[in-house]
Amino acid sequence: MPKSQFSLIPQRFQLHDAPNKDEFGEKFWPYLVIASQLTGILIVALLLIWLISDLGGFGWDGTAAQFNVHPLCMVLGMIFINGEAALSYRIFRNDRKVVIKAVHAILQAITFILIVIGLVAVWQFHNHNKFNNMYSFHSWCGLITVLLFSLQLTIGAVMFIFRITGERIRSYYLKLHVYFGCAIFVMAIATCLLGINEKLFLKYPHSYSNLPSGAAMGNCLGLAILTFGLIVIYMLSSPIYKRKPEPGNYSLSALGGEESEEDPIKDG
Amino acid sequence: MPKSQFSLIPQRFQLHDAPNKDEFGEKFWPYLVIASQLTGILIVALLLIWLISDLGGFGWDGTAAQFNVHPLCMVLGMIFINGEAALSYRIFRNDRKVVIKAVHAILQAITFILIVIGLVAVWQFHNHNKFNNMYSFHSWCGLITVLLFSLQLTIGAVMFIFRITGERIRSYYLKLHVYFGCAIFVMAIATCLLGINEKLFLKYPHSYSNLPSGAAMGNCLGLAILTFGLIVIYMLSSPIYKRKPEPGNYSLSALGGEESEEDPIKDG
Repeated sequence: MPKSQFSLIPQRFQLHDAPNKDEFGEKFWPYLVIASQLTGILIVALLLIWLISDLGGFGWDGTAAQFNVHPLCMVLGMIFINGEAALSYRIFRNDRKVVIKAVHAILQAITFILIVIGLVAVWQFHNHNKFNNMYSFHSWCGLITVLLFSLQLTIGAVMFIFRITGERIRSYYLKLHVYFGCAIFVMAIATCLLGINEKLFLKYPHSYSNLPSGAAMGNCLGLAILTFGLIVIYMLSSPIYKRKPEPGNYSLSALGGEESEEDPIKDG
Repeated sequence: MPKSQFSLIPQRFQLHDAPNKDEFGEKFWPYLVIASQLTGILIVALLLIWLISDLGGFGWDGTAAQFNVHPLCMVLGMIFINGEAALSYRIFRNDRKVVIKAVHAILQAITFILIVIGLVAVWQFHNHNKFNNMYSFHSWCGLITVLLFSLQLTIGAVMFIFRITGERIRSYYLKLHVYFGCAIFVMAIATCLLGINEKLFLKYPHSYSNLPSGAAMGNCLGLAILTFGLIVIYMLSSPIYKRKPEPGNYSLSALGGEESEEDPIKDG
């Protein structure tokens, strides 16, 4: 379906191949893409301002400056880049699948590296200051989320890059991959919100209730992360926004439908 | 498709009308139902044990005993009953739609009453003890979640009980209703986790890191809530578990497919 020339979004990102006809949803798509990207940029901006202005910047010396590397890496990785990696299948809906798959895999690998740096930063910080590890609910949720993410990354690589199984098993696994991708993203959001909350109670034990500027900034960062999550999950879960399955490939649905996991030879 | 006689789940709850063929998913359904219900019961049990044994039980006297009414009502309402209300369309998939719609509406009305009691309890507790209101990230998230829930309940009643609009607008709204139902449920989970975290930092400002039994119990309650949420959202979002649309009614999809919003006269 040809689009109006006045569209805010370049032709290649448009939704002219939506498999389920929904005019309202199609018109809404460009605004969702813009909203997701603006909210993502807002998260990164608020995160940097909060960590540099209110929490003292970055370092690697066992002080709070080293601790700050932890939220920097985890929010950048598990929220922003992980969210963009998931969205890449939707936003670049009219590009070659094999390219998007590479973008998705590279972004998730970058997320994994950020996770490792972020965890080493907080672990060394705790040990340097003789703080206990792994007591808070944030740390429990974080551990589960990071383990699930690593498992998802490993199985995803084995199934979709090295392709050790047949198409039928891969097709079943794809549904789980999509569901767990969304579930891990949501758990990462919950873990970040818990981490921000924990930081505010530890940093402002007596003054949080008066909402000093650093605490208000932390709350705003949390709201931005929550908003980004709601937009991203809506874009991922709505059936009308899924890629059109290519002919000759099987099609699967999970969380509102996922495109086919086609053969890269056919695809490229 | 006839089911094995050895099924754990009575015939009426079985998935013999799944519109999208998926044998693995069909076999998995009874276990999902059992897991969701056991996790829901676990939440209520852990909540009561935590609030009575570790946090001092209930009252309405401005003390911590009155505060405890707040988590009791919010978790019971926004998590357990709200989750069951959403699941009612899936679990009672072979029953008459008009009955399920009534069950859904009544459960959500009970949730709303619990929300009001829970909010009055904490507001009076704060004012009685001269604590500030609405400073924490938990309170910000909670306010947004409760406002969205109230809006959803109001518009849902206007659209699906009083039916002030035509079928076409109702069909568009249904998709939003299903998405926001899931989104509000997820936000309620995040808010509860933040509330538990906040309570633990306020109750154990110096000893949380040694994980006293009350703190460990709070963490476990949080994990149970998170697990319940992941199971419920999986059951709601998987297209194969949606109700089969009835003939002559329009069918819609959101978050993996929602059944038709048929006319109650046709239905009953």
